[in-house]
Amino acid sequence: MATTTHDKRIPRDSDSDYTREAADARRRFLKDQTGADLEHVTSYSFDPSILPGNIESFVGVAQVPLGVAGPLLVDGEHARGEFFVPLATAEGTLVASYNRGMKLLHEAGGVKVTVMDDVMQRAPAFLFDSARESRAFAQWLDDHFDEIKQAAETTTKSGKLRDIEKYSASRILFTRFNYTTGDAAGQNLTGKATAAACAWITAHHPAIRRFFLESNFATDKKSSQVNMLRTRGKRVVAEATIPDALFRRIMNSSTEVMFRARQVSNLGSFMSGVNNNGAHSANGITAMFIATGQDAANVAESSAAFIYAERHDNGDYYYSVTIPSLIVATYGGGTGLATQRECLELLGCYGDGKVRKFAEIVAATVLCGELSLGSAVVAEEWVDAHDLYGRNR
Amino acid sequence: MATTTHDKRIPRDSDSDYTREAADARRRFLKDQTGADLEHVTSYSFDPSILPGNIESFVGVAQVPLGVAGPLLVDGEHARGEFFVPLATAEGTLVASYNRGMKLLHEAGGVKVTVMDDVMQRAPAFLFDSARESRAFAQWLDDHFDEIKQAAETTTKSGKLRDIEKYSASRILFTRFNYTTGDAAGQNLTGKATAAACAWITAHHPAIRRFFLESNFATDKKSSQVNMLRTRGKRVVAEATIPDALFRRIMNSSTEVMFRARQVSNLGSFMSGVNNNGAHSANGITAMFIATGQDAANVAESSAAFIYAERHDNGDYYYSVTIPSLIVATYGGGTGLATQRECLELLGCYGDGKVRKFAEIVAATVLCGELSLGSAVVAEEWVDAHDLYGRNR
Amino acid sequence: MATTTHDKRIPRDSDSDYTREAADARRRFLKDQTGADLEHVTSYSFDPSILPGNIESFVGVAQVPLGVAGPLLVDGEHARGEFFVPLATAEGTLVASYNRGMKLLHEAGGVKVTVMDDVMQRAPAFLFDSARESRAFAQWLDDHFDEIKQAAETTTKSGKLRDIEKYSASRILFTRFNYTTGDAAGQNLTGKATAAACAWITAHHPAIRRFFLESNFATDKKSSQVNMLRTRGKRVVAEATIPDALFRRIMNSSTEVMFRARQVSNLGSFMSGVNNNGAHSANGITAMFIATGQDAANVAESSAAFIYAERHDNGDYYYSVTIPSLIVATYGGGTGLATQRECLELLGCYGDGKVRKFAEIVAATVLCGELSLGSAVVAEEWVDAHDLYGRNR
Amino acid sequence: MATTTHDKRIPRDSDSDYTREAADARRRFLKDQTGADLEHVTSYSFDPSILPGNIESFVGVAQVPLGVAGPLLVDGEHARGEFFVPLATAEGTLVASYNRGMKLLHEAGGVKVTVMDDVMQRAPAFLFDSARESRAFAQWLDDHFDEIKQAAETTTKSGKLRDIEKYSASRILFTRFNYTTGDAAGQNLTGKATAAACAWITAHHPAIRRFFLESNFATDKKSSQVNMLRTRGKRVVAEATIPDALFRRIMNSSTEVMFRARQVSNLGSFMSGVNNNGAHSANGITAMFIATGQDAANVAESSAAFIYAERHDNGDYYYSVTIPSLIVATYGGGTGLATQRECLELLGCYGDGKVRKFAEIVAATVLCGELSLGSAVVAEEWVDAHDLYGRNR
Repeated sequence: MATTTHDKRIPRDSDSDYTREAADARRRFLKDQTGADLEHVTSYSFDPSILPGNIESFVGVAQVPLGVAGPLLVDGEHARGEFFVPLATAEGTLVASYNRGMKLLHEAGGVKVTVMDDVMQRAPAFLFDSARESRAFAQWLDDHFDEIKQAAETTTKSGKLRDIEKYSASRILFTRFNYTTGDAAGQNLTGKATAAACAWITAHHPAIRRFFLESNFATDKKSSQVNMLRTRGKRVVAEATIPDALFRRIMNSSTEVMFRARQVSNLGSFMSGVNNNGAHSANGITAMFIATGQDAANVAESSAAFIYAERHDNGDYYYSVTIPSLIVATYGGGTGLATQRECLELLGCYGDGKVRKFAEIVAATVLCGELSLGSAVVAEEWVDAHDLYGRNR
Repeated sequence: MATTTHDKRIPRDSDSDYTREAADARRRFLKDQTGADLEHVTSYSFDPSILPGNIESFVGVAQVPLGVAGPLLVDGEHARGEFFVPLATAEGTLVASYNRGMKLLHEAGGVKVTVMDDVMQRAPAFLFDSARESRAFAQWLDDHFDEIKQAAETTTKSGKLRDIEKYSASRILFTRFNYTTGDAAGQNLTGKATAAACAWITAHHPAIRRFFLESNFATDKKSSQVNMLRTRGKRVVAEATIPDALFRRIMNSSTEVMFRARQVSNLGSFMSGVNNNGAHSANGITAMFIATGQDAANVAESSAAFIYAERHDNGDYYYSVTIPSLIVATYGGGTGLATQRECLELLGCYGDGKVRKFAEIVAATVLCGELSLGSAVVAEEWVDAHDLYGRNR
Repeated sequence: MATTTHDKRIPRDSDSDYTREAADARRRFLKDQTGADLEHVTSYSFDPSILPGNIESFVGVAQVPLGVAGPLLVDGEHARGEFFVPLATAEGTLVASYNRGMKLLHEAGGVKVTVMDDVMQRAPAFLFDSARESRAFAQWLDDHFDEIKQAAETTTKSGKLRDIEKYSASRILFTRFNYTTGDAAGQNLTGKATAAACAWITAHHPAIRRFFLESNFATDKKSSQVNMLRTRGKRVVAEATIPDALFRRIMNSSTEVMFRARQVSNLGSFMSGVNNNGAHSANGITAMFIATGQDAANVAESSAAFIYAERHDNGDYYYSVTIPSLIVATYGGGTGLATQRECLELLGCYGDGKVRKFAEIVAATVLCGELSLGSAVVAEEWVDAHDLYGRNR
Repeated sequence: MATTTHDKRIPRDSDSDYTREAADARRRFLKDQTGADLEHVTSYSFDPSILPGNIESFVGVAQVPLGVAGPLLVDGEHARGEFFVPLATAEGTLVASYNRGMKLLHEAGGVKVTVMDDVMQRAPAFLFDSARESRAFAQWLDDHFDEIKQAAETTTKSGKLRDIEKYSASRILFTRFNYTTGDAAGQNLTGKATAAACAWITAHHPAIRRFFLESNFATDKKSSQVNMLRTRGKRVVAEATIPDALFRRIMNSSTEVMFRARQVSNLGSFMSGVNNNGAHSANGITAMFIATGQDAANVAESSAAFIYAERHDNGDYYYSVTIPSLIVATYGGGTGLATQRECLELLGCYGDGKVRKFAEIVAATVLCGELSLGSAVVAEEWVDAHDLYGRNR
């Protein structure tokens, strides 16, 4: 390996770094260093001056193809009626597959969606001389909740400290500071608020020996059992009941084979230790996230899901998906960027008071995708099954 | 909820749907339906005729801001030397944070990276009259491996069936058909090959009662213990040893506090049931995935990671990250699109024979981000700690 | 297989089945059926009339060898001073190994133990027409907690309903009814109380479509993440700080190699998906459980544990074990049987108000066993390590 | 806390410690120290001279009540016909409940049982300068398997090294040395054999920097995902198909409500992170383990289980339990002790070549218990359900 001195700094204009010129200077630098041209990335339609707070060392944009699926019929508490869903992806058949599921569910009367919980957290850990002081501190947190809440909320308008969960191990108290965060996803907001709360706590509690602002108990950008149990972001349920005839007509499948495959998949999921006993919720979520300016890294945790299905005596198929840690925003982050805002507006979800509506649309979309891919897998099996049974019986 | 008839079909031009005109027709339709303008999404620099296989119902592009970090010094087997890493994100400080970590690791002599394994799978399940036939079938698979391999490989040039793992439960045999897939991520390839293999199997084994092409044992787009143990895509280790003085000078931290925080984080991770005992590998992975045309939905599984650290007597900090299921490609999917290809070329990773090089760069980037955020968290604690200790002792 | 009619009923004396005569009749029946003699099992020293509520179809006793280890020096809130610990086992070296650990910890000043939480639960699930009614029901439970508590507590003197945890998925609300249960383990008590509570609930809440008294969310006799997080039975921490010199003198080991092995073991534990990152807490727990009349099936969940260690600059080793779901009783079940009561009395733990004292002694014993086996493994490595290093360097 | 000097040693007769006299001396010592009488524990019927290798500091026996259930009708490959099952427990209704399940399954034609796999392991970890050497070592292990096998098997007659699994993370290679172990459970045997194998390995491979004989990847006495996937001890499936009419007649239940409850339980299990989606397999396993001289600490891992059920169109209920890590022996450990041997003989399972037969009987017993408790829970619900539905509809 050629060792090199670290003098090849990426250019930065300390006066005005968020300009086409600064971006171009960086592209030229990269060309000098690597020989690579970056031309297509210059095809952006907004003024880079809007970018502070979104990116550093800006050189242009990634152009991600955008398709649309729908109409999606949603029976939510915030989203009601038909929606056309923007999906940014380069994976062929994704849009078509979700679209097919939306058609099935539309004919079945739509997708009922409910936001069950809504909470974002930061998880500081506190270390003591022994477990006994840790236990006392847990009580102290309860006794001083109002003051802690006040300290936390000095740093934020939209964040409200709801409660503090406590998990003890050794001489450490792991906590989860749970907030409601309005229309923001809230990771930064809860970070600042919790830092302020901890400043108050460490100033007032004499027995704390160390504290750690993060301890892998909020598991930001990571999937965890604790978040699947206790919620991070939105916990959303999407559900529908689909007649067997619809499956046969639209999906070349049947609720009998769907349900049978579900049983095997449930067992496989339990044994493989997967965080989602469904098919591919990450596909729809990621495509919506990129389209609408969500933080796509949150797919790590937003991709967890629980499927629950019932087949009724009349052949109807009740099907539901629960997304326990869906991280979404209609304010802040990338939601205000040029194309991202347009995609939120397409859903009527840009700006204040829209985040639960958006969460409902995401979950409804996911349900459509689950039934679509689930049917496709089974439809193949269905065909093969006929051959098999013809031969075997 | 207003119920509606499903006559509002998204326009599709059956002759030539991948044109600006067809895209514009859809945008007009969406405007009619929702009142929303989609203007910025039209700012794309490529001909839509390249898009079949990447998207359906194309309406334009999402413009995702692209920054660059580096130089990243890599000591891989395929990637050797300095790299400038493209990161597509709208999350402020992400690029700066990875850049800071790259500086630290550059001064420490770079990041050593090794691809430990490379395997993509599809996981059919087979159901029998009883467990006993399932057990016999497991043996039968071994006895007929060559024929099965031949059947699978008729469908693909680059895919090679390496082995078949078997996991039994009840009267079902869950299998994992493990393939090497060249420079493609390989999910589609392995799907087709395994379908062909299963056609041969079901035609030749009389006792199979049902089979399911998927059973949630490959856990595509989902994080699972089985993939963390057995690998999906690339299993990559990035490692480095950093002197304490560097941490103090560059990071306002020390290896002592880093290591202490690591212990607490390890415990938190174990108890919370998280799939990653590190900080935020999903951030760097997602930003690189969007920039380079990877399937960002694979962040679901690519975000799993194992951190292992040692603090030596001289204060040096050995730090490593293992990514057990990194799904990457330098061929197929979105890798050939306009900006995506440019970003791969920036890394010298476009096209044939480049996928392990790319995997190494991703893992090296992740390591830099782990140390950067880890230091930042600890640096705050470090400051506060001084206050604490001044007061308490 | 010889098919047989089911006429070979095990004899039962409907008047007085708990007598030596009834037991002997069964033994003769078994001899007739199988040819096997059961002679040693007749060597019991108590009157079978005490057995109703403990066993059915009594034929005698299993004689499990009983050893004793100690003195164990405990610094608990309930257990204070030295104890001699009865261990029922047939596994050679188990008693000796725990004894060796007790010696180490005695010289180190004893084991500090703290009961962090104490709660037993039953987990009914409630099913509704949709998720929305499930969410409303969660609120309803809060609003009617006092009435529900009253209904539950009509069935028990010692059980107190503390709170109801709620976990939603699909149209189902999973709950955990959390009780304090005095000196009983409390599984039966909470079952009856929760059945009464659910009778009241289903009589008063019109929207419940089905309810299930158990749903695998209390995970009785099974290990689970939810119980490791939220406690089942007693959550107990045992901790100690041991000087390096003691390890060298007593254990032929050192804190440096212990701590190094701990790091590797932590990584192995995280990756293997184990419920305990320690060595073998199940050994000591099981032996104490059998000796003292605990329900040894609870080893399934009581064997979960979290180890957390620190090595200080002076070489001292801080070591702790957290047992998150230790199910113990000093009243009810087998605690009042002949030898079992004697063993509880040996610890001063028989009868009212002793259960936390007993929990403390169990956890202290576990800590001794962890350090003993941990040292033994490392001591071998230590020897081998010298060879290795002599050769390699 | 009264601090004390460590002079209170438990008496030990260095000449002949395994005598009634030595045991009595210890009991007198304990009486002196604690005031507690140990009288009932002296009621043992064997000569203590048989105990070396089973216990240290022997003072007597725990008398655990022993009941019997049956006849259990087994359709195994080794166990065929009717069995009367000894259960040592103090938990009331346990024997009766298993007995009821045995009656149900007897009428249904018995329990089909299959041992799917049989493997015991020890899991050394090897540490290298970097991941690259770790990867090379994995290949080296394959290349030298024959020599390693030879080294391992010098230490044992019954143990055979079958294969070595490899799991990499960081610069560490975690391995699982998998053995068949005849009629012994094999933990000690595999420990010795693997130590010998590692001595050979470390003597011949120059790049190993450290090795650890255990790394928490065999997870002895602990439940883990890796063992649930890859088997530890015996992997056994018990299965049966039960007509609906039998459930109604014997269980006051029906297959419809059983199956419905199973769906909810599967979801609860998945969400709670439990290692067993069934009811209470630990109960039967523990009671059989204590009765027959198994190491009851292995309940920690033997209690993991997978339930899989189907309800057929004619109402028949297919039900199966898979026990992936059942640790049993018919030789060694406590199996030769007085009452323990009698209980094995009652099953025709004492001595050579009997261990799979015994494993089959255990699994068949477990299945009976699952259906019995499952029905009981549902039967209550069934009654309540009628009230509910009368009211609600």
